[in-house]
Amino acid sequence: MPKLLNDVFLKALNREPVPYTPVWMMRQAGRYLPEYNATRSRAGSFMTLCKSHDLATEVTLQPLERFPLDAAILFSDILTIPDAMGLGLSFIEGEGPRFAHPLQDESAILSIRAPDPNNLNYVMETASSIRRALNNKIPLIGFSGSPFTLACYMIEGHGNTDFAIARSLLYRRPDLMHHLLQVNTQAITEYLNGQISSGVQSIMIFDTWGGLLSDSNYLPFSLNYIQNIINGLNPGEDGIKIPTILYTKGGGNWLEAMSLTGVNCLGLDWSTSIHKARLRVGEKVALQGNLDPMALFSSSTVIEAQVSEILADFGFGNGHIFNLGHGIDRNTPPENAAVLIDAVHRLSIPYHL
Amino acid sequence: MPKLLNDVFLKALNREPVPYTPVWMMRQAGRYLPEYNATRSRAGSFMTLCKSHDLATEVTLQPLERFPLDAAILFSDILTIPDAMGLGLSFIEGEGPRFAHPLQDESAILSIRAPDPNNLNYVMETASSIRRALNNKIPLIGFSGSPFTLACYMIEGHGNTDFAIARSLLYRRPDLMHHLLQVNTQAITEYLNGQISSGVQSIMIFDTWGGLLSDSNYLPFSLNYIQNIINGLNPGEDGIKIPTILYTKGGGNWLEAMSLTGVNCLGLDWSTSIHKARLRVGEKVALQGNLDPMALFSSSTVIEAQVSEILADFGFGNGHIFNLGHGIDRNTPPENAAVLIDAVHRLSIPYHL
Repeated sequence: MPKLLNDVFLKALNREPVPYTPVWMMRQAGRYLPEYNATRSRAGSFMTLCKSHDLATEVTLQPLERFPLDAAILFSDILTIPDAMGLGLSFIEGEGPRFAHPLQDESAILSIRAPDPNNLNYVMETASSIRRALNNKIPLIGFSGSPFTLACYMIEGHGNTDFAIARSLLYRRPDLMHHLLQVNTQAITEYLNGQISSGVQSIMIFDTWGGLLSDSNYLPFSLNYIQNIINGLNPGEDGIKIPTILYTKGGGNWLEAMSLTGVNCLGLDWSTSIHKARLRVGEKVALQGNLDPMALFSSSTVIEAQVSEILADFGFGNGHIFNLGHGIDRNTPPENAAVLIDAVHRLSIPYHL
Repeated sequence: MPKLLNDVFLKALNREPVPYTPVWMMRQAGRYLPEYNATRSRAGSFMTLCKSHDLATEVTLQPLERFPLDAAILFSDILTIPDAMGLGLSFIEGEGPRFAHPLQDESAILSIRAPDPNNLNYVMETASSIRRALNNKIPLIGFSGSPFTLACYMIEGHGNTDFAIARSLLYRRPDLMHHLLQVNTQAITEYLNGQISSGVQSIMIFDTWGGLLSDSNYLPFSLNYIQNIINGLNPGEDGIKIPTILYTKGGGNWLEAMSLTGVNCLGLDWSTSIHKARLRVGEKVALQGNLDPMALFSSSTVIEAQVSEILADFGFGNGHIFNLGHGIDRNTPPENAAVLIDAVHRLSIPYHL
């Protein structure tokens, strides 16, 4: 198997020595890039873009042509699994995702099943296509939403600020919530193993809404299921465990528990100090993050100062992957993303001497 | 000055011995009560309800007739100050607050001034009216939004999930953000001192959006201004400092810093363990919270179990005020609020023997 030209990201995930801090950006292939918007227009709808492996490969590569990023991420969406279960996903401009058939009652929840893997073949074809196109220059990250995060959308049918219906189900009918989470866990494990077979070299789990859970519910309703997924992942093409990243937005309270799941890295949002996080869990896991995406609306000077601050907060040594604390905002000037990536590469060298 | 019949809430704020854990609910006078909805219909608009001291007093008292709550809270809104500054507040059904004149450019921000106190007289009249109506049965809580939380709405003009424009201003033009926060701080201090003169017996500061700030920005852009407000509060009618509560939603990372501002109590949302919070700051401040409001959509058995868990998590001794981790949801069955309040009173007695 040919060696990766740039394995800085994978080494950092394993807290091995690297010459500089690797960097990628959540939603790096996205609406802040005019070339992405052009391809999306051509596709017609977001789901058509996701389902065409040629177009999905094209948009995955677009940011790599502009910026010296240290990883690529599969172009897809966290809601492909419920779509494949038959919930009917669409994206309405300015409103976000919407399911035609949300799980609105007990019988709907009890009849939900892990999807026919054939319904998700398009994701596997895209992963293979991107992996070929990357030609071993940088590694490819696969991903899924967490069981609880998927459940939020499946129950409510669309995004919102607090997912009150999903969260109240957890108290009203914990049995139904656990049933749904169990089905999602099985589906996600199969889905991620499919991505691994198709060539992804790392896995990230997006627990975007786990931070809405109470302290005592986070473990039983989110983290335990994520743990089951981690336990169920197959080794990669070289027979070795694929390095994994777990990101719970608003999960700063639970880093210790998250670090014990066997994941290699925790993704941090910007509300958590990466310095304090390293003190808490840095001997167990690498850390990814955590610039506020809004910092990219400022000047080169401010962006460099913010990057410096985060690099210094993490400090000397290994186990840091630079990223934003959440996805890059669609109105971000692309040239400011270039400033960020250059600053991380340049300013991090002294921390790795 | 006549003594309060029920001073359990005020004693708990000062971490003095009490016979049971006091309880009140954020938004206890609100849309989950049919009698509130009737009064609001009669008023026509939400702002008319706020501006009529008779109607605002009526709705403040409504939950007290149903439930043996240990405190009342002034019926008002956190956005009265920017409304009094001339931003033109209205509430659109199903959409929340909206300003007719948000601060959309530098000149708008630089020309903003603390409001003429006369524009907020209606709030002071309401506070006096409620205080009289309470007849020293239970204490009255006054409140304000935090400087940063008000700035979010003033800049964006309406509520949203991430206040991206306000948060990007902080990086683009920190000078403008600091100017606005300074004006808000002066206005809020005067506003709260007016409430104190009008008879409120405790003050709560709602830093509803402080949790959107990065770890390194929370202190300079939110907590430092809150500290200035706390420092500027006048004593109450008996010449003694009014006990204060600070609630930063999503602020679990910053409890230590919050506990050093001189506030008497920190309000916790449900993502923070009250047990761990007590270990971190319980020698400095009382703690308020922190039931997930969604727990009130379950059965009596589940609500009692959830209450038991939080009481046990806080443990024996003083300095706990029971509350929800955020406002009560408008669809909550009122009878479940009764179950909550009864459970807190009954199940907390053993922790105070």
